[in-house]
Amino acid sequence: MMFFMQAAAAPSSGPIPADLPPALCILGLGLIGSSLARAMHDRLPVVGWSPSEETRAAAAADGFDVADTLDSALRRAVQQDALVVLASPVTTFRGLLGSIDELAPKVRLTDVASVKAVVQDQVANLAPQARYIGSHPMAGTANSGWPAGSPGLFDRAAWVTCLTEDSNAHDWAAVASVALAVGSRVVPAEPPAHDAAVARISHLPHILALALAQVGEQGGALALSLAASSFADATRVAGTRPALIRAMCETNRDALIDALDDALGIIGVARGSLASTGSLDKITQGGHLARSNFDHRADDLRSVTLDGEELIDQLLAVGMAGGHVSGFERIGSELAIKAWYPDQE
Amino acid sequence: MMFFMQAAAAPSSGPIPADLPPALCILGLGLIGSSLARAMHDRLPVVGWSPSEETRAAAAADGFDVADTLDSALRRAVQQDALVVLASPVTTFRGLLGSIDELAPKVRLTDVASVKAVVQDQVANLAPQARYIGSHPMAGTANSGWPAGSPGLFDRAAWVTCLTEDSNAHDWAAVASVALAVGSRVVPAEPPAHDAAVARISHLPHILALALAQVGEQGGALALSLAASSFADATRVAGTRPALIRAMCETNRDALIDALDDALGIIGVARGSLASTGSLDKITQGGHLARSNFDHRADDLRSVTLDGEELIDQLLAVGMAGGHVSGFERIGSELAIKAWYPDQE
Repeated sequence: MMFFMQAAAAPSSGPIPADLPPALCILGLGLIGSSLARAMHDRLPVVGWSPSEETRAAAAADGFDVADTLDSALRRAVQQDALVVLASPVTTFRGLLGSIDELAPKVRLTDVASVKAVVQDQVANLAPQARYIGSHPMAGTANSGWPAGSPGLFDRAAWVTCLTEDSNAHDWAAVASVALAVGSRVVPAEPPAHDAAVARISHLPHILALALAQVGEQGGALALSLAASSFADATRVAGTRPALIRAMCETNRDALIDALDDALGIIGVARGSLASTGSLDKITQGGHLARSNFDHRADDLRSVTLDGEELIDQLLAVGMAGGHVSGFERIGSELAIKAWYPDQE
Repeated sequence: MMFFMQAAAAPSSGPIPADLPPALCILGLGLIGSSLARAMHDRLPVVGWSPSEETRAAAAADGFDVADTLDSALRRAVQQDALVVLASPVTTFRGLLGSIDELAPKVRLTDVASVKAVVQDQVANLAPQARYIGSHPMAGTANSGWPAGSPGLFDRAAWVTCLTEDSNAHDWAAVASVALAVGSRVVPAEPPAHDAAVARISHLPHILALALAQVGEQGGALALSLAASSFADATRVAGTRPALIRAMCETNRDALIDALDDALGIIGVARGSLASTGSLDKITQGGHLARSNFDHRADDLRSVTLDGEELIDQLLAVGMAGGHVSGFERIGSELAIKAWYPDQE
């Protein structure tokens, strides 16, 4: 991959706006929406809306600007040139996108759902003029709802920003600026690459935790009374509400099936080896090396500067290599994108 | 199950000695042996031995009483009427048991290995006169070796004590007294029940962690850069040294194969359901309930007092029900065993 590192290179797509969008319109005030509102309301105007009257009242009581209706929220978003953030469950997007197409068709738009290809398709079908950049902040807690929100939730988290060959770099920069402002690492990725990645490192861990919890319980009260940190840690996410796990995993069906098949293959081979030769050499060596590579994944990143042509390709290459965007920098009259990229031997 | 709760009941096997054994002889001075020596050396005479001269020197430099040879350690154990503790890897037991049968054939003996039926058989074959009670303190850290030992390692851990119908309650009490003295909960269990339980709550979690680490890595640098706490927690034990994982898991082969088959079944059914109907209802409901039961496993224990006849059966019933022995109590001229047992509706 080639980086354009000269300050004098002229970006064909024009200067990248390092500034935050003029305002935020957050639709959905659960854990993520609440945290985003709390993190950003000192930086720019934030308008929130929730279909729940109780949630709207709670947000207003905490001093936040809350729209009474979705229509009024969207009309204000157009007036303010706001970035609209879909922060409600994916199952609600269809209705929201219909309203956006009617009332704010050309608005800047992002979402925070944990699957991206499906949402990209929905937006293309239901709000085709929206200037959409999908995103996924990899942050959460066991709690949910407006009161669970925290302005520090996104600090040092990975915040995926989705790009395709048709994406507009200016619209991407608006989303990236917000993610950087709340302290996240910005990871550019194509929607299918995102979905494949989270199937492996988020959705599969939930399925394995759910299975392990049941196998442990099948061992009866003695087994549960002996369980210590290895079982407790490995089953922790099985405590997540079933509806949330289903919403994540079922919407990422194809990628999760691939990950499940890989896991079933590795576990099945280990089972066969243990039964036939008594050896677990292969899985212990392979798994230990993989965990070690995970522990050292960010050991050798170096700072690079992106500008010039093929910016979308450069951004995607940063994400695919395990790097991330860390900020914008003004060089002369132009803006360049600062990123961390793995040092290659 | 019937408990004898009257203080006046006369135990047929005679009073249980609540006192600690006169001395400890710890063979193997790694994490567990070192921690046990550090936790007990203020309470009774402790003699340690390690095949490693370097380890013996390190223990002696820390002020501990270290025998130069295995023979001298065992001769002193006989003189002191010590409880001998095998605290080295299972692979070394064969040689140690030969020496015990030669030099200290009728000694009180326990071990701290993570599998129990295999060791029970080895002792029966190689040191048949030893007064053996197998044990397994469910405690550990990522570190190993004499310097890693800590007197607090066993605090509030489960310490399995193995019983069969032939076990001598007095020999069991000597081991249980040591476990209680270092702050552990004493969980009585038959060796095969122990092995089945730890396959599910300790060995299977290691295999799943090893598999997950590899499936994550197969997602490439993007996947690893997005991995957050669910992946990090679920793969943590994949960082354990491969040799240690193999020593635990390969020696518990049959029980681990049963646990692996249960896990493969649950994951396979979920995969099939996701592929055919798109639903993960069954695994999410079942796994969430199982994790919830784990979280509340010790909510309703009540104190009971064990004495009288069929003490071994009573102790095993406590362990199988998820309870544990918490201490000894002198009632009049007799000693009774205090235990916590699940309150049954």
